Amino acid sequence: MADQLILLGTWISPYSTRVKIALAEKGVDYEFREEDLTNKSPLLLKTNPINKQIPVLIHNGKPVCESLIIVQYIDQVWNHKSPLLPSDPHQLAQARFWADYVDKKVYSAARQLMFSTGETQETAKNDFIGCLKVLEGELGDKPYFGGETFGIVDVALIPSYSFFFAYEQFGNFSIVAECPALVDWVNRCMEKESVSKHLPDQHKVYDYISERKKKLQSK
Amino acid sequence: MADQLILLGTWISPYSTRVKIALAEKGVDYEFREEDLTNKSPLLLKTNPINKQIPVLIHNGKPVCESLIIVQYIDQVWNHKSPLLPSDPHQLAQARFWADYVDKKVYSAARQLMFSTGETQETAKNDFIGCLKVLEGELGDKPYFGGETFGIVDVALIPSYSFFFAYEQFGNFSIVAECPALVDWVNRCMEKESVSKHLPDQHKVYDYISERKKKLQSK
Repeated sequence: MADQLILLGTWISPYSTRVKIALAEKGVDYEFREEDLTNKSPLLLKTNPINKQIPVLIHNGKPVCESLIIVQYIDQVWNHKSPLLPSDPHQLAQARFWADYVDKKVYSAARQLMFSTGETQETAKNDFIGCLKVLEGELGDKPYFGGETFGIVDVALIPSYSFFFAYEQFGNFSIVAECPALVDWVNRCMEKESVSKHLPDQHKVYDYISERKKKLQSK
Repeated sequence: MADQLILLGTWISPYSTRVKIALAEKGVDYEFREEDLTNKSPLLLKTNPINKQIPVLIHNGKPVCESLIIVQYIDQVWNHKSPLLPSDPHQLAQARFWADYVDKKVYSAARQLMFSTGETQETAKNDFIGCLKVLEGELGDKPYFGGETFGIVDVALIPSYSFFFAYEQFGNFSIVAECPALVDWVNRCMEKESVSKHLPDQHKVYDYISERKKKLQSK
């Protein structure tokens, strides 16, 4: 019997994009169901009753929640190709550390940068650029964060590329001027179909965020 | 050559306690070095330059940071006994989900409960009790969170027991009255020497937190 695989997510969520990329790396077919977060589906509420958040991957009826946990799950279940996690314990711990860093630092600074104004936004912008520079330092001369092959830290971070235009517009700065090596890494990742096929368009993302920001400010 | 193992931590940190428990479960010897967080050691700053936080486990010169990542590292390296993570992918994802829940929800609500006052404290208390009740629901009739054996979710949560007296004093409530099954679980964990030997005394913890709170309030 073929596996039944459903992914609950939204087109813009970088967390959903992570899961799409991981599944594409493994060459696994699935059904994507777009969620309306203002009116969450009964299936989302049933499969992630604790956090009620996307993404949720439902594999033969069993839900897995939280994007980085889902990516690790995918890597373990479909282990026939494209390993996303190193097998060496120390390298694995390092990969988890940096994926966690991306989760805790990059996306929260990015959210502040996009949705705040004035001084708060200036601080958020500096924090965000600081995070990117830390990541650029960690990348060093390696093609990918884990070394020679595309792995979990790349999967964790690359969805943010869809937001680069928005970051630059809201923050009035240039990412390539600040972090040229990181942009080289972006371009390397974008050569992979698993990535380029699943990242939403930067201008569509910018328009969506702009609309949302306007709505929030008019409240 | 024997492994050289150094743990940088503080006596009171529940995150350090997690690592001590995991190492005790594996029967692994190590050197514990108490850090002064107001004057961090050069070794801490060198081994965790990004977050500059304890705990750090230094294994033959190689540092591993972030308590839950360290616990997973320990489980992978010393895999001869007491597995702390399930091998089944879905159970493993569930274990990671709940360990993450403890990390993100329980300890932050607890901190608010201990260090805030007035209405904020009342909200934090309700949040905290809510978290404990969610965990109690997840535990259900199982002896441990993962089922029959002590595992990563237990390791993640049990250090909070050292703070129970402090939570109750600052929040003016009774944990056993709110969550009797969770307290049964605590008692079950405390029967394990790996746990009882490494949890700091509740009154010592309360005195320390009280002092710190006084200092913060007088600033």
